Amino acid sequence: MDFSAVQNRQQAFIEERGWQDFQTPKNLVMALMVESAELQEIFQWLTPEESWQVRDKPGVLEHVGEEAADILLYLLHLCRQLNIDLEQAVNDKMQKNAVKYPLGSS
Amino acid sequence: MDFSAVQNRQQAFIEERGWQDFQTPKNLVMALMVESAELQEIFQWLTPEESWQVRDKPGVLEHVGEEAADILLYLLHLCRQLNIDLEQAVNDKMQKNAVKYPLGSS
Amino acid sequence: MDFSAVQNRQQAFIEERGWQDFQTPKNLVMALMVESAELQEIFQWLTPEESWQVRDKPGVLEHVGEEAADILLYLLHLCRQLNIDLEQAVNDKMQKNAVKYPLGSS
Amino acid sequence: MDFSAVQNRQQAFIEERGWQDFQTPKNLVMALMVESAELQEIFQWLTPEESWQVRDKPGVLEHVGEEAADILLYLLHLCRQLNIDLEQAVNDKMQKNAVKYPLGSS
Repeated sequence: MDFSAVQNRQQAFIEERGWQDFQTPKNLVMALMVESAELQEIFQWLTPEESWQVRDKPGVLEHVGEEAADILLYLLHLCRQLNIDLEQAVNDKMQKNAVKYPLGSS
Repeated sequence: MDFSAVQNRQQAFIEERGWQDFQTPKNLVMALMVESAELQEIFQWLTPEESWQVRDKPGVLEHVGEEAADILLYLLHLCRQLNIDLEQAVNDKMQKNAVKYPLGSS
Repeated sequence: MDFSAVQNRQQAFIEERGWQDFQTPKNLVMALMVESAELQEIFQWLTPEESWQVRDKPGVLEHVGEEAADILLYLLHLCRQLNIDLEQAVNDKMQKNAVKYPLGSS
Repeated sequence: MDFSAVQNRQQAFIEERGWQDFQTPKNLVMALMVESAELQEIFQWLTPEESWQVRDKPGVLEHVGEEAADILLYLLHLCRQLNIDLEQAVNDKMQKNAVKYPLGSS
């Protein structure tokens, strides 16, 4: 996925609607969390087994995909606002995790 | 960013440590939310202006990047578990948003 | 507020509807978090000043009150399920905070 | 529990430490959510059964009690800031729920 392309498209979307003033890092973090809760709401009363069975329910799956997309869109916009390279951050974190949880440690 | 490559690397990381049983969609959603809260914690007492100034604080910025990476890693793993194409979901959502918020509507 | 009376009323409400099986501590914690997010959603795009002005908006205030009530109801039910005395826990925490943040420390 | 007494004690605690400026409704809502996530973190990798077994683990139970207390403290402080009567809100919500979910409806 081309993060820059999505970020630019989002930024244009926001500017065209005059929503720039709301996009503070603080507000974006709050919005990201609210979207995470909307994702969680889908799963809150499910057993572990039922949470797997979501794979076979196209309607629920589409809902999960929409919330997942919202989360990534806010995350990308937050990173844009703060000049964070998300791809680099993910690579760094995976390397850090490998050091934090060495094989045979758990 | 190559989502599949990251997802495969994550999956190998988890299998090498014997953590598969914990990775139910329900648990991953909960973990994603906890990481979102760790991101929010960084911003909770900041004014809007201070939330912008995070851009000039390398230590805080690195912390934000780590939490952002954790969120994306859990999101990608969740999508892998449920066979959701996150890139497609983002494209679909952006198109849906354009319909939901037509220009001149707000 | 009489916590036990509310907890008993809730328990009766749940049993009358046959919802007992869903009320695991894990699920209740998830539901509490989702309600917290619904509260947060009301405030996410507000400036600090606007968040104060909610005091003068009866409709928004009623909405905040409903979400606050949902949070307390889930919290009380969770404490009931785990045999936690919430009033005692609050007293203990306030004492602990007084030790953690001694006067003149910040 | 005497909500007013706890709210007054909290307010004094905050004023003695000069923390008033941070206590906007928006920030308190964010803090409440972060505490909810700290509670959720305790349960995120547990099976439903293990989440019940927390009842028999004094150390974990104490941790749960502390996070539950933090949530209620922030909730009470938020209600104080917005002049919301939390006890009244809970009573109203329980009546509303009885109407929303009539017996025999689910």
